[in-house]
Amino acid sequence: MSISLGEIAARYGCELQGDPEAQVSHVATLSAAGCDSITFLANKLYRQQLETTAAAAVILSAEHAEACPTAAIVAPNPYAVYARVATELHPPLALVSGIDAQASVGEGCTLAPSCQVAAGAVIEDGATLGERVSIGPNSVVGRDAQIGDDTQLMANVTVYHGVRIGRRCLLHSGAVIGADGFGIAQDEAGWTKVPQVGGVDIADDVEIGANTTIDRGAIDDTVICAGVKLDNQIQIAHNVVIGAHTAIAALAGVSGSTTVGAGCLIGGACIIAGHLSICDQVMLAAGSGVSSSIDKPGAYGGFPAMTDEISRWRRNVVRYSQLDEMARRLRKVEKLAEKMADQEKLNNS
Amino acid sequence: MSISLGEIAARYGCELQGDPEAQVSHVATLSAAGCDSITFLANKLYRQQLETTAAAAVILSAEHAEACPTAAIVAPNPYAVYARVATELHPPLALVSGIDAQASVGEGCTLAPSCQVAAGAVIEDGATLGERVSIGPNSVVGRDAQIGDDTQLMANVTVYHGVRIGRRCLLHSGAVIGADGFGIAQDEAGWTKVPQVGGVDIADDVEIGANTTIDRGAIDDTVICAGVKLDNQIQIAHNVVIGAHTAIAALAGVSGSTTVGAGCLIGGACIIAGHLSICDQVMLAAGSGVSSSIDKPGAYGGFPAMTDEISRWRRNVVRYSQLDEMARRLRKVEKLAEKMADQEKLNNS
Amino acid sequence: MSISLGEIAARYGCELQGDPEAQVSHVATLSAAGCDSITFLANKLYRQQLETTAAAAVILSAEHAEACPTAAIVAPNPYAVYARVATELHPPLALVSGIDAQASVGEGCTLAPSCQVAAGAVIEDGATLGERVSIGPNSVVGRDAQIGDDTQLMANVTVYHGVRIGRRCLLHSGAVIGADGFGIAQDEAGWTKVPQVGGVDIADDVEIGANTTIDRGAIDDTVICAGVKLDNQIQIAHNVVIGAHTAIAALAGVSGSTTVGAGCLIGGACIIAGHLSICDQVMLAAGSGVSSSIDKPGAYGGFPAMTDEISRWRRNVVRYSQLDEMARRLRKVEKLAEKMADQEKLNNS
Repeated sequence: MSISLGEIAARYGCELQGDPEAQVSHVATLSAAGCDSITFLANKLYRQQLETTAAAAVILSAEHAEACPTAAIVAPNPYAVYARVATELHPPLALVSGIDAQASVGEGCTLAPSCQVAAGAVIEDGATLGERVSIGPNSVVGRDAQIGDDTQLMANVTVYHGVRIGRRCLLHSGAVIGADGFGIAQDEAGWTKVPQVGGVDIADDVEIGANTTIDRGAIDDTVICAGVKLDNQIQIAHNVVIGAHTAIAALAGVSGSTTVGAGCLIGGACIIAGHLSICDQVMLAAGSGVSSSIDKPGAYGGFPAMTDEISRWRRNVVRYSQLDEMARRLRKVEKLAEKMADQEKLNNS
Repeated sequence: MSISLGEIAARYGCELQGDPEAQVSHVATLSAAGCDSITFLANKLYRQQLETTAAAAVILSAEHAEACPTAAIVAPNPYAVYARVATELHPPLALVSGIDAQASVGEGCTLAPSCQVAAGAVIEDGATLGERVSIGPNSVVGRDAQIGDDTQLMANVTVYHGVRIGRRCLLHSGAVIGADGFGIAQDEAGWTKVPQVGGVDIADDVEIGANTTIDRGAIDDTVICAGVKLDNQIQIAHNVVIGAHTAIAALAGVSGSTTVGAGCLIGGACIIAGHLSICDQVMLAAGSGVSSSIDKPGAYGGFPAMTDEISRWRRNVVRYSQLDEMARRLRKVEKLAEKMADQEKLNNS
Repeated sequence: MSISLGEIAARYGCELQGDPEAQVSHVATLSAAGCDSITFLANKLYRQQLETTAAAAVILSAEHAEACPTAAIVAPNPYAVYARVATELHPPLALVSGIDAQASVGEGCTLAPSCQVAAGAVIEDGATLGERVSIGPNSVVGRDAQIGDDTQLMANVTVYHGVRIGRRCLLHSGAVIGADGFGIAQDEAGWTKVPQVGGVDIADDVEIGANTTIDRGAIDDTVICAGVKLDNQIQIAHNVVIGAHTAIAALAGVSGSTTVGAGCLIGGACIIAGHLSICDQVMLAAGSGVSSSIDKPGAYGGFPAMTDEISRWRRNVVRYSQLDEMARRLRKVEKLAEKMADQEKLNNS
């Protein structure tokens, strides 16, 4: 499969510097690209590699076009154009519809004929799979769960009973959707389990990373809105709501009953406490710990100092690295002040 | 299924304000409850929703009884009473005993006839499953493992060889019990693996969350005592001991050979170093990092400042957010002191 | 199976204090050892238990030999010798080659006849398994993946399409190798997925812990070099390179395109930001957060203060626990300085 640069430029409304007939057949990095490949420059860290790239063409922004030693596809958002070109050049494998002989499908299930159910997959009673749904090897779809059109579960995914997943979602291996939330009530004897009778409601175009867990609600549902992107090993507790198009990086955790707004960017390993409300368009630096609600869009960071505006937090981070020196300086100025106070007393006596 | 308020009050020794004949058939939140549902108030954050609830009845403590606009079930511990009522109204699905044709059972296994083994489950040679044990789809029970009566493994759980699990336990999907501990010895060539010949011993009434991992011991066993509740994505390293009725929130980690006492509450994302001893009744704030043993019950927090008493840590957290300001004030007072010292010298010269 | 102390001493070049004919048949801890067991002392924390051990023999370093109440096997690196003795006394179960009737093997696969493929395992089209490869129950090997000789996948492991794994590797349950990296490009409508067309290349002698995830590269491969040891629940993002013989403890995360050098020791729960370079022989304390490259071997720690040398960081940690007290002292010295400045003005007026 190959595309001409002219086609790419026309299709994505980009300016082309170079031969419109030149063909590219696969994507590559700036440094590894050969004469049949197309690459991109989106992160300035890699600016230096532009000068020596052997790619057929580079997708980049106007500011770098002049420095490009080969054909340039100039776009305001080169990474988004690259994403689309890469999808054309490297399309996902076509579905092979049908149910593998070593899969297990329960009673009362509704499977569109276009579905693909791989070996070892288990579809429990009453589950519904829409058109072109793909269930990977050894994945499990629980009783009465519903999976929307064109959604794909890779291998070893677990979807619990009653969970609803929208269209065009992608769930990676080891993801567990709908396990019980951590609801326990303390009593004399220790703990009593609080039944988790809510569900999980995942909208369209959601991607869920490997080994990420999303718990079912205690009473109402846990809700993941449209276009949310979750990286690997994220924990979403019961009754959390994640707003549309919010992206969360790996190892982060959102505690029970917290609402995260739309269009947020949550850095890796962030921890958000329970029963909070984070408004739309909040950016959290990696490793942040949030223990109170945020009601103003913006960039925040810090742990355990929470919801500091990010510039103030960054200054505090620098000060933290100087803390021992500050303590020594404080001791010195204390001594000086004491000495002067003694002197003063002496002078005034 | 429905219960009368009178029955509930009698069964759990609560005071009833309202009609004992009124029936409830399911649980709901304060805000979403309708006329056939029962709800509860246990967290003051939701106090305001009490006033407008349309529930048939609310389980709450005496201090809120007067403000309740509907029938009230007054209990000293409303959450624990709610847990029991919810369990009655929403009982778990009954087991269907039997071994699915697409399950695999090895040689020399002992399975009680009341067991349920789902499609795709693999029970390896010599394993023992007690009465009413339920093994979910695609779960694996290793060679010679023992699972006690009424214990339930959801889908895609892994129990390694020789692991012992008690009665009435619940293991969620993706949990891995008994993988090798991280035992490696450095030598000239790099690393030599240290065989992990211990096991894992899990007592009765333990719940283990999705994708939580509990490693087998290096020589002796890793031990999880009765009534322990572990949330999702927790890491319990080799030879850890977790005391009875301790609850640990998601994303926490306990390093090798550490003993955590009984009745502890470990917040989410806490990290506890290895070879430590944490006494009974310790509460750790979320995100704490513990690097030395704790021998006094109480609440602790802080990272990387460890085992601070929690009130001192909370003050430090506030100071951390003021650190840059403190540094500026220190600089100012230094300048003032220097100036005055110079002046003093001048005066005395 | 048993070995004589004389054999052990000879095989590993150790000095023996005691009867060379004495036999040991299994390993034990210092405190639990009986008369047929061998144990070791490598961590000074357990020094006290040496005095009362009932073991047949203890592997230890010269400095503790005199205090040993029983036979001593004296070695400069007792833990490494213990690892080898333990492996001899507790050898892994022998493979039973063959493909279980309930496994699924796709078309065009190459499986050495010495392979063991357990019940429920799924080997997709075109995959290659070398000699004596063992694929555990319900594990999935993706299309065209390659697994080298003597590598073992425990139960419920997922290897995505095209991943290459070397020889003598061990992958624990729940590990996911080759899921898509977190590549998303922001545009007007939200996010466009960036196809992850790279692979994962894992060299020989790598161990990967339970529920650890290693993402496939965006364009080039993610690379794990020979002898790397990864504990549980680690996240390795796309295009990361981990150098030879580096060991990483549980819950750590390495963000995209970062290179970690050879011979590093990364503590538990460390977070390393993306696009960085960590040189060889770096030790990171548990819980560290690294946000800039490290180009000098050594020990580092701190979060969010990064790449502080560890002694400076440790002093800062202590100061952090004194922060509130420092703030009070600062306020006091400010007041004193102000008062003195006022007095000065008065004196000079």
